Amino acid sequence: MNAQSEKHINIGALVFPRMDQIDLTGPFEVLSRLPNSKFHLLWKEPTPVRDFRGLIITPETTFAEAPPLDLLVVPGGFGQEALMDDDVVLKFIQAKAATASYVFSICTGALLCGAAGLLRGVRSTTHWSAFHLLPYFGAIPVNARVVVDGKHVSAAGVTAGLDGALRVAVLLAGERVAQQIQLGIEYAPDPPYHSGSPQTAAPEVLQAARASVQKITEARLITAQRVGARLGIKGL
Amino acid sequence: MNAQSEKHINIGALVFPRMDQIDLTGPFEVLSRLPNSKFHLLWKEPTPVRDFRGLIITPETTFAEAPPLDLLVVPGGFGQEALMDDDVVLKFIQAKAATASYVFSICTGALLCGAAGLLRGVRSTTHWSAFHLLPYFGAIPVNARVVVDGKHVSAAGVTAGLDGALRVAVLLAGERVAQQIQLGIEYAPDPPYHSGSPQTAAPEVLQAARASVQKITEARLITAQRVGARLGIKGL
Repeated sequence: MNAQSEKHINIGALVFPRMDQIDLTGPFEVLSRLPNSKFHLLWKEPTPVRDFRGLIITPETTFAEAPPLDLLVVPGGFGQEALMDDDVVLKFIQAKAATASYVFSICTGALLCGAAGLLRGVRSTTHWSAFHLLPYFGAIPVNARVVVDGKHVSAAGVTAGLDGALRVAVLLAGERVAQQIQLGIEYAPDPPYHSGSPQTAAPEVLQAARASVQKITEARLITAQRVGARLGIKGL
Repeated sequence: MNAQSEKHINIGALVFPRMDQIDLTGPFEVLSRLPNSKFHLLWKEPTPVRDFRGLIITPETTFAEAPPLDLLVVPGGFGQEALMDDDVVLKFIQAKAATASYVFSICTGALLCGAAGLLRGVRSTTHWSAFHLLPYFGAIPVNARVVVDGKHVSAAGVTAGLDGALRVAVLLAGERVAQQIQLGIEYAPDPPYHSGSPQTAAPEVLQAARASVQKITEARLITAQRVGARLGIKGL
């Protein structure tokens, strides 16, 4: 292991109701394997939380107990929308981000970072269905799988958290460690179709996928407008 | 949705101590989105279980309560080794596999299916570190990311469960449904390195990864020999 990996690394990830579980469990799979690190699952209470498809995951560390973090991980999913005006959550994100070396959002976790005021002038990405909302938080949208801008790392939708986490692993522990983790988790992906992005999916597949998230996307737009106004973002 | 997806689909996945959580949470992400389906998390007791890196997931359905399954999902990870002589687990796998339309193993979940006697003459894959153990269970090793042989679907290591789950989604609900799920979870993977398989990783990365699993691999060999003898597998 290289010199970078000798420092103890505190990682903390938000866990919240109706999140999309793989936004968390993808990065957990990669980053919990970092040498000399501890991965904390953080929420208001240390009680089980159900993801939007019903999986139950237990956060073990309350916000009050959370140590200073080297890396703050902010997942997304449907449940993100309910936290966009939640002062306890947004202030916790602000406080931990202020002293963290890196802040890593996955999917619509970027909108939570935006609502916490972290993304002003920051190049960022998010799930394709929410990409048009980034400017409301002052972010500069970049259509890429993973975007690194200073201390801010953002992954696109859901499964992009795996690619983002490997990039974060490089930043925290170096290339060799990241490559060894990638081999350990046999991450040589080979999806059966090229349907993973709006640019490559068949038009009728994109239309159906858009329809399935139309309601939440409309709600997120209204929220983004309100939160952007509260943050005093210019030019909207 | 096509005709195939109109039938209600019962999916059941094993959850066990020291499993590798993304062997489960990857397929859960894909398959819990199948229309008209229910995803059951199955274990001996409905109490929280900790994966080998510490993540706590709660199975909600006991073996006794499990309904007949259309799809049985068998994850792997370090904890698989402790179940290779567990009669309760192996008999449950046998019973559910007998009436399921498909049995889907991820990573070293294939060894559990093997110990349950399901893999005699079945083309199969598993994590690269356990690939040489497949013949002890009478399986025919196939070095591929996902192998489909009749009702048996096996995915290679860990993250291969995502690719395998999309293949299973096609079998259960058709191409269009699988493609829409792939777009929903934005699965257009883009790892930063080509380190995800022994064939493409740098030699020193492979050496370090092999060393990190040497102990468990040695234990798995001894177990595979013993279990293969118990099953009466010929030609070992």
